[in-house]
Order: sequence, then structure tokens, then C-alpha cells
Amino acid sequence: MFQKKAMEYIAHQNYEYKSVYNGIEIAVILENVRSMHNVGAIFRSCDAMGVNEVYLVGYTPQPPHRDIQKAALGATETVKWRYFSNIEEAILHAGKSGYSIAGIEQAHHSILLNQAVAELPPKVAIILGNEVDGVSDTALSLCNYCIEIPQVGDKHSFNIAVAAGIVLWELRRSRFSV
Amino acid sequence: MFQKKAMEYIAHQNYEYKSVYNGIEIAVILENVRSMHNVGAIFRSCDAMGVNEVYLVGYTPQPPHRDIQKAALGATETVKWRYFSNIEEAILHAGKSGYSIAGIEQAHHSILLNQAVAELPPKVAIILGNEVDGVSDTALSLCNYCIEIPQVGDKHSFNIAVAAGIVLWELRRSRFSV
Repeated sequence: MFQKKAMEYIAHQNYEYKSVYNGIEIAVILENVRSMHNVGAIFRSCDAMGVNEVYLVGYTPQPPHRDIQKAALGATETVKWRYFSNIEEAILHAGKSGYSIAGIEQAHHSILLNQAVAELPPKVAIILGNEVDGVSDTALSLCNYCIEIPQVGDKHSFNIAVAAGIVLWELRRSRFSV
Repeated sequence: MFQKKAMEYIAHQNYEYKSVYNGIEIAVILENVRSMHNVGAIFRSCDAMGVNEVYLVGYTPQPPHRDIQKAALGATETVKWRYFSNIEEAILHAGKSGYSIAGIEQAHHSILLNQAVAELPPKVAIILGNEVDGVSDTALSLCNYCIEIPQVGDKHSFNIAVAAGIVLWELRRSRFSV
């Protein structure tokens, strides 16, 4: 009943999707993300969801590196990225480039993710923090918005690449709605 | 401006979320997923999104294992799981338990993910396949539905744990809408 699409078919279909986005421009800021596997997986999601650019900050590893490529499957070549040694500098640059800054964190006064598209401006840079510590207090103090992924479970956390993917999907999903 | 929530605060908030779901019961079937890191991250997402149970199938690794626990951060203790040696048996069991079966794959006649909640029945088991090969043709031939995550990029793929997280979020997100 269900037959997998050939790559040529997907590429064609994709081309049509790509012609118009949903009016939201997105940058992704990774603040001291440690794992190459996570950074690579996030590049892959940024390619899939049409992210403008990725800022790698602090000790976040940079391409080219075998372990990043292995998880990114080529997406480090298709997604623009740059490096900043500190988060203030990265946020300042994003702000000057016209992005509003949104931390992804469980914080007071956060917007629940399902309400984000309605509340955010059309050009937004999302910050994902370290795997253990999350977005730093320094970064949070410079954010215009904070977005929280609501959860029903006991553990109250997602893998960071999963969290990034969920947020990017939510920001982009209306693009695909008829 | 944004202050991180204390764990006690989140736990309390979570308790209120948990009182009602959105009328959708979810199981997750992992078919020959190879990476312990991916399996662990998926358990973590299943905890966060209130998944009923996880079926580990074929050579998908089973807890307890240090590398799974490391990524699951305890979620293998809070999410029910069972093992099936082959996918037909797993799908048969899910069907007998009342689940409709939905493969996550780029296939002809698939539902785009943003339309899934409108089209799926209220009890659904999603199948995620191997990192390289995706959901097997055998499994696809036994699916009632196939769900595709639409993408705009050049690489046409997500990390499997990211794909799982995006699908679970989409199935659950209306739970959090006011």
C-alpha cells in the first residue's frame, strides 16, 4: 500500500515546497553545546526546516569534524554557520541582523511552544544551551522571549537535538498547512 | 527577565498538565534502530510526551544498558516497554491492543504530519525504522497510515530521535492549546 518515494521524487517535491516559506526567518544559536552528535543532528534539522544560519558559540564544536559530519550527513555544507567565542557577542550580532532573541528554556514568563508562532515576530534567533545546564543566565538576561516546550512526563527534559527539532518544526509547520 | 524554573515548580506544573491528555493514545514501535543514543533519547521524548508504551523490535537494543540510560536519563524506568523479535509480531500485537499503525516514512499516499491529528484515529502506534533504511517494506505493507514530515531543505532526512520527537510533539501539541 505504501511505497517509499524515490530520492528524485522527493527532490522534486521539495523544490516546490521550497519556493515559499511561511514568512518566518529563523537563526539557531548553540551555546556551549558539547556533543558533536547533537551539533550534527541539529545541522540536519536546520537544513530540513530552512534555517537561515547557525551560530556556534563558546565550546560548541565546529565543522569540519568527522563526528559532526557523521550526524549531519552533509548539512554542514548546506547550512550557513559562523562561530562566536562568547554568547553576548553572538546575541549582539543576531540583534543587529534584525533577529529577536528567544531562549529555549523552562523559565518563568516563557511562552508555551504551541503559542509561539502567534506571539513571536517574523525574524527570530532561538538559543539552545548546554546539554546539562541549558541556556545560561547571561543569555537568558539578553533574550526578548523565552520559549518552553510543555511536557506531560516525569523527567522534564528532552535531548537538545530533539528540542531543537521540535521548536523548528513548530515554527515552520504552518508553512505546510493548506 | 527570564528566570529558570526550579524542579519542584516544574514537577507541580507538570502534574496539572498530566491530569488530562488530548484524547490521543500513542505507542512507539522502533524497528531495528541501531544506536543506543537514539533509543535513549526516544525514551526521554516518550516520557515527556506521555507515550503509553514502546515496542523494541529486532536488533533495537534493550535496557538496561549504560549507553541507553545515559541518553534516557531515567526514562527507561518511567515508560513501559517490551521486546518483539520480528516486526510482524509487534504490529499484530499493537493491532490487537487497539492501535492503528502509522509508519513514519517518505512514501506515496502518506499524510503530511501537520494534517495527521485531523486524519488519524485516537489510538495510534507509530513505527520508526532503522537509521539508514527507514521503515521496512514489510512493516509499511502492514501500516494503516503513513506519516511524512514535510521538509524544505536539500538533505531530506532527520535524525531518527529528532523525527520521533517532532511526530510526538505534533500528536500531543493540541493538548496544550487553550
